[in-house]
Amino acid sequence: MIPAIKWEGDRLVLLDQRYLPERIEFVHCRNYREISAAIKDMVVRGAPAIGIAGGYAMASSVRECGETSFEGCYRYLREAANHISAARPTAVNLMWAVDRVLRKALSVLESAERAGTREDAALKEAYAAAVEEARTIEAEDLELNKKIGEHGARLIRPGSRVLTHCNAGALATGGYGTALGVIRKAWEEKKISMVFADETRPYLQGARLTAWELSQDGIDVTVIVDSAAGYLMSKGLVDCVIVGADRIAANGDVANKIGTYTLACLAHMHNIPFYVAAPSSTFDLSIPDMSAIPVEERSPEEVTSFFGTRTVPEGVRALNPSFDLTPHGLISAIITEKGVIEPPIPENLPRIIKG
Amino acid sequence: MIPAIKWEGDRLVLLDQRYLPERIEFVHCRNYREISAAIKDMVVRGAPAIGIAGGYAMASSVRECGETSFEGCYRYLREAANHISAARPTAVNLMWAVDRVLRKALSVLESAERAGTREDAALKEAYAAAVEEARTIEAEDLELNKKIGEHGARLIRPGSRVLTHCNAGALATGGYGTALGVIRKAWEEKKISMVFADETRPYLQGARLTAWELSQDGIDVTVIVDSAAGYLMSKGLVDCVIVGADRIAANGDVANKIGTYTLACLAHMHNIPFYVAAPSSTFDLSIPDMSAIPVEERSPEEVTSFFGTRTVPEGVRALNPSFDLTPHGLISAIITEKGVIEPPIPENLPRIIKG
Repeated sequence: MIPAIKWEGDRLVLLDQRYLPERIEFVHCRNYREISAAIKDMVVRGAPAIGIAGGYAMASSVRECGETSFEGCYRYLREAANHISAARPTAVNLMWAVDRVLRKALSVLESAERAGTREDAALKEAYAAAVEEARTIEAEDLELNKKIGEHGARLIRPGSRVLTHCNAGALATGGYGTALGVIRKAWEEKKISMVFADETRPYLQGARLTAWELSQDGIDVTVIVDSAAGYLMSKGLVDCVIVGADRIAANGDVANKIGTYTLACLAHMHNIPFYVAAPSSTFDLSIPDMSAIPVEERSPEEVTSFFGTRTVPEGVRALNPSFDLTPHGLISAIITEKGVIEPPIPENLPRIIKG
Repeated sequence: MIPAIKWEGDRLVLLDQRYLPERIEFVHCRNYREISAAIKDMVVRGAPAIGIAGGYAMASSVRECGETSFEGCYRYLREAANHISAARPTAVNLMWAVDRVLRKALSVLESAERAGTREDAALKEAYAAAVEEARTIEAEDLELNKKIGEHGARLIRPGSRVLTHCNAGALATGGYGTALGVIRKAWEEKKISMVFADETRPYLQGARLTAWELSQDGIDVTVIVDSAAGYLMSKGLVDCVIVGADRIAANGDVANKIGTYTLACLAHMHNIPFYVAAPSSTFDLSIPDMSAIPVEERSPEEVTSFFGTRTVPEGVRALNPSFDLTPHGLISAIITEKGVIEPPIPENLPRIIKG
């Protein structure tokens, strides 16, 4: 499969996910501001993939730093980190990865300063270390996802018809996917008879990306409009729901693509297991519950027009919350690389995530 | 406002609702087969409007009848009735209106046969009576909707933010609308502060038609993607839900546009009133409950492409149920022109509908 993210020389090459599957195009980002803009504009999306891209953006900023004092460098890098982290406010993986690469770069610079190394030489060293850290984040993510796949596949019963929302797949991660990692592994084990993919308005990540990814891997997938999920459940056609996450609070409340909460409500009413699959970097233990998670509102134009065709009359408002919040009480289990968090989630979460 | 349906001479002129609000175009139907095709292709849509168009189609078939014996005429008209009724299988108003105009035409023909009138003269007389009956259905529908609006507006509390799905408005009826009739009346009474319109994939009747209709009447409307309804409810931004219906069983179970059942589940979980507004012609007392309502499945292409742009990769399946089924237990009240049916709906329904 075509990788969503590729570091080449000093550039980040991103598969432009806005035009898939119609067109396969790449965006070449030459500096951290271009990477940030690509994140903001959803060239790259999916919490773990945003994190990886953000890590490379942070690394790039070290190369771009033209400051001639250590103090100036520290300030420059912290400003760059803030700029990158602000590109998408809901996914915590972005902040996590940016912070990890920033800390790496700062520690190299600080050691160099203590050792009396010149700033320009120190920056070169810090850049190499930062790129290496970003690469490590990317490589780790692929490994994590395979572990998530293994843990999650154990929860899937043979013959399952699985519903997923948005794209928590290879395109959204360093590869393999979180929710789609579980589906890939369970499909490999012949436990899945059908994947239903919500099309996921307004950006159609389900129709465009999940359907593309799964069909490329030969996994049976059927696309439905988002509002058909309830009907399918009422007809007994869905055995479980698996989605990804953009941020998970300390008590297990989940922020994820708009429509996730609706699926959780529907799954609850139909007694269908509702699973969230996410790496531990998605957990934000600094916030107690979902009330503190910022929900990004994107431009109304994503709702009022469609591939350039206006669908809503001129002058009519639209509201475009990009995420919603699902309380832990509606979640059957959270699948992480460190293990499966089962209810009571607030009690079991710290043991697995910190342990 | 531009009427959705207009009988002119011997033709039915339909506002082509597939292209609103981008283009205002009309389809001129010269015979009953063209009207049936327009119903099937969703040039005209909405259960009451389909009924009205079907009534005119039935009338048109009387003019088109070239049979030279009364027996032949009866057979021809019954076949035409079957053809028209098959255009959309879920909405019962279509069958109801076709049957009403058919009975009128047949009774005129039978009287003429008994009186010894010639077939061609009898057909002329039957055609005039059939057109008159179709006109009556149309005129009655407008009046019914105003009554529905009055009954329904009493249920709306001042300051309400109302969520609606699809288009149960003037465009879907002989005018004024059912769900939007309630909204129009309550807005007039200054009880509504905001209408949220689900965009209603795949055909976007909410984004294209409801937003257009309401904004033309100066009613504040905000469009959201279908999957955002749960989030809005969880934030306390929705005070009630009002939708139309395509068929209502004897126990009050409702078939309506795909996504209605999901809203009913969400409203139930959030303790928000969920209202259905429909004329008595929408009730099908011949079927005991929703298990006997046929759910139309439309072409997967409505899901896999969008205004000519393919959104789902080639070779990937889509499922496109056009309606879903909401059990009466999730409905707070059904608003009809004869009054409001409150729970227990199965017990109260016969008194109001037959009474």
